[in-house]
Amino acid sequence: MFMDLNADLGEGFGSWQMGDDNALLDVVTSANVACGFHAGDPSIMRRVTARAVSRGVAIGAHVGYADKAGFGRRFVDIEPSALRDEVVYQIAALDGFARIAGDRVRYVKPHGALYNTIGHHLEQAAAVVGAVADYDRSLPVLGLPGSAWLRLAADTGLPVVHEAFADRAYTPSGTLVSRREAGSVLHDADEIAARCTAMATGQPIHDIEGGTLKVEPASICVHGDTPGAVDIARRVRSAMEGAGVTLSPFAQ
Amino acid sequence: MFMDLNADLGEGFGSWQMGDDNALLDVVTSANVACGFHAGDPSIMRRVTARAVSRGVAIGAHVGYADKAGFGRRFVDIEPSALRDEVVYQIAALDGFARIAGDRVRYVKPHGALYNTIGHHLEQAAAVVGAVADYDRSLPVLGLPGSAWLRLAADTGLPVVHEAFADRAYTPSGTLVSRREAGSVLHDADEIAARCTAMATGQPIHDIEGGTLKVEPASICVHGDTPGAVDIARRVRSAMEGAGVTLSPFAQ
Amino acid sequence: MFMDLNADLGEGFGSWQMGDDNALLDVVTSANVACGFHAGDPSIMRRVTARAVSRGVAIGAHVGYADKAGFGRRFVDIEPSALRDEVVYQIAALDGFARIAGDRVRYVKPHGALYNTIGHHLEQAAAVVGAVADYDRSLPVLGLPGSAWLRLAADTGLPVVHEAFADRAYTPSGTLVSRREAGSVLHDADEIAARCTAMATGQPIHDIEGGTLKVEPASICVHGDTPGAVDIARRVRSAMEGAGVTLSPFAQ
Amino acid sequence: MFMDLNADLGEGFGSWQMGDDNALLDVVTSANVACGFHAGDPSIMRRVTARAVSRGVAIGAHVGYADKAGFGRRFVDIEPSALRDEVVYQIAALDGFARIAGDRVRYVKPHGALYNTIGHHLEQAAAVVGAVADYDRSLPVLGLPGSAWLRLAADTGLPVVHEAFADRAYTPSGTLVSRREAGSVLHDADEIAARCTAMATGQPIHDIEGGTLKVEPASICVHGDTPGAVDIARRVRSAMEGAGVTLSPFAQ
Repeated sequence: MFMDLNADLGEGFGSWQMGDDNALLDVVTSANVACGFHAGDPSIMRRVTARAVSRGVAIGAHVGYADKAGFGRRFVDIEPSALRDEVVYQIAALDGFARIAGDRVRYVKPHGALYNTIGHHLEQAAAVVGAVADYDRSLPVLGLPGSAWLRLAADTGLPVVHEAFADRAYTPSGTLVSRREAGSVLHDADEIAARCTAMATGQPIHDIEGGTLKVEPASICVHGDTPGAVDIARRVRSAMEGAGVTLSPFAQ
Repeated sequence: MFMDLNADLGEGFGSWQMGDDNALLDVVTSANVACGFHAGDPSIMRRVTARAVSRGVAIGAHVGYADKAGFGRRFVDIEPSALRDEVVYQIAALDGFARIAGDRVRYVKPHGALYNTIGHHLEQAAAVVGAVADYDRSLPVLGLPGSAWLRLAADTGLPVVHEAFADRAYTPSGTLVSRREAGSVLHDADEIAARCTAMATGQPIHDIEGGTLKVEPASICVHGDTPGAVDIARRVRSAMEGAGVTLSPFAQ
Repeated sequence: MFMDLNADLGEGFGSWQMGDDNALLDVVTSANVACGFHAGDPSIMRRVTARAVSRGVAIGAHVGYADKAGFGRRFVDIEPSALRDEVVYQIAALDGFARIAGDRVRYVKPHGALYNTIGHHLEQAAAVVGAVADYDRSLPVLGLPGSAWLRLAADTGLPVVHEAFADRAYTPSGTLVSRREAGSVLHDADEIAARCTAMATGQPIHDIEGGTLKVEPASICVHGDTPGAVDIARRVRSAMEGAGVTLSPFAQ
Repeated sequence: MFMDLNADLGEGFGSWQMGDDNALLDVVTSANVACGFHAGDPSIMRRVTARAVSRGVAIGAHVGYADKAGFGRRFVDIEPSALRDEVVYQIAALDGFARIAGDRVRYVKPHGALYNTIGHHLEQAAAVVGAVADYDRSLPVLGLPGSAWLRLAADTGLPVVHEAFADRAYTPSGTLVSRREAGSVLHDADEIAARCTAMATGQPIHDIEGGTLKVEPASICVHGDTPGAVDIARRVRSAMEGAGVTLSPFAQ
């Protein structure tokens, strides 16, 4: 049994910090590295990619809207062709640092509002898919099962990888419970760790209505910037390892 | 006899234009393409690189300080390691578009205040050299003979290419006359064309004091954004061709 | 009979130009001055406000989304409280220059995607209204009759001013024909001038279906950045003056 | 005996935090509020100015170079007229929020590299002085005794206020010991508090060579973003109060 653990990293900017990159790079197996548009800057990108390679952590391009003031969390109604070019730019820039570090960008995962938008916004989803395909048709894309993003990516022939969220509640049909609803986010580290272990070992989890649901992700996303993030990530990892799961990057 | 003609291109930003990229891409043989830091944006980079490839024009990374408000014309006392990383970022981003267009970045030429600064500022010159060497040790760098930038690049083993400026006056010792002095910039298209032809055919030119000087560049820089820029560039090209000079990129 | 003529001005950025500010400041009576978020910068703001005051042109704050790359033409799903604060910031910054020039900001007119959005988006409309009310409850706001923006502004007690567009077709119910439809934008200078004169003298105009429509704006917007913009603006002004209309700022 | 205590505040940006604004606003009497160029954003400016007014803390415009990536800590060789306009823009924007909060900007203190530069760079110092004089000739400026900034401000007729640094060592001639030298920064909270109390009560302090020096500032600057900053600020305040010094803003 293998499982990949991914987290958003490199989300500081200049003198501002966000999360504990170094600690998380000792826990996760895939790093979604900000590319300087919603967060991150060239020196942070260099530092995080170098450390990721030294730890055997796979580097993913965490592409987002060009909106540092909003941390990429606000939908921008950008023209699809401009979005496509911005995504190419971000992947290519990160790839430069990944190659200097001795590896390369191994996958693409959109960030924040872009991630949410391309779950359903066909033009923007197609734009991001087009950017990845333009850059490298062999690059896997990471996302939610059922999203427009993964559907269009699969249609285009890109390798598609399903992820689950360690701390989010699921509906009976397997979609995420909206953050606006009570109980949508789990906070108990033990519960989060147990649920991740279940997903990694092929066991069902409880949906928000108490039923059971089988989620079979190839990667599990843990948060990097919430209070206790590092501790939860460590608990998730060690619970999975205790259950015989080998942690390793999905993309190599 | 061969000569390369380079110009700064892709210096618009969003809805703002600068110069006539399309017209110049029919004249020059090497395009110094802005990388989104002092000017340019992802969609402009895509458009210019695509057209450059279609015209057989070599793509150079025109890297600059991150200063759109100042168009990269103001010295910034940035730490060398941060500058190095910003230059890597710019080269890599442009290379993404160059590769999508079917080619790759063929050389690096710094822009504006960065170009001037690394003529003498050893730490920043070393930072830019380090960035190019980190990214690709086979990438030629373009600059002024005698500059710290080219000296350090040569020490590092990077291919070094000398350029001359079509419309700038030279001192008897072969350096550029400061823009602050009278007569430093030539405006007469015939004179500029004649002087470029002389340089391309191994003939001496007049220095500002009336003496003769042999300048033997591998590339000549024509301006892209001054009034009459396209016309002057065409005159330079046709005068050289009339003298039997073949125009072709120095880097291929 | 009095009429105000407004245009978007100060929309350059650093070395990039947009439109001919000086020529338009000799034609219009109200200047919608960009505040550095979608376009403009401090030195442009200073120059345009100084010249506006010297010409007796009223200064309006042309507030927009913080999106120079998109020239403020892309909807941004920003939180209302953040939008409110960004609008305060822009008005206040422009007011600094207006006061140095010897006048002050006389009205507020949102730009581009923000203008369109607050025609119907209640939360963002309320945010912009809130910003103006926070800054100065006596400041008039300029907009389209029937827009959420003007309705909420009136509810809040702000002075509300109706504007018409010189070159846009109207539906029989008095709303603008969408730019996506044929005939939505007029290009003939004579037709534009005649229609503006009609509006200024209380005569009906033709709607897009050939019926007649009475539009009674307190201000007419002419474009500043389209080809022939200055010429059309001059034609509009001189046609109105020829019909006995006195051109003068609505806000003084 | 009265003393003012100032600190840099509002230096977060979007989702990124810096220092503990709320805690410091309960300790200091003057807040140098970032204006969105080197740090800060409109919502932070609104929040900090509102809380400052509610605590009786005077609001100062902490103006800086437009360089968030470098946190305003890098010299930028900007043209003096552009710098002047950028400083006007920042003061005016902050003043908008200060007035909404019921007060107004009470003084100007440059930040970081701009502060250091205008200690000696006459053109940039004159530009910042010009901006303050343009905006409001009655606005006091805060700085180091002996700096070009204060000298030119005094020549222009601006009220000039001397500050001292709580944790910096002084040379026998009363200038700051360069940060590059050992012992330039004090770290012991007791020592810092004792030295501030001495300065506030007219007693001499020790210079770096062991001699005595009388520093008579009207304001003392405590840091806001270093580890232990809040604790040191509290110790400084309570030591001064214990010695009978009344803490109150210099500008009211």
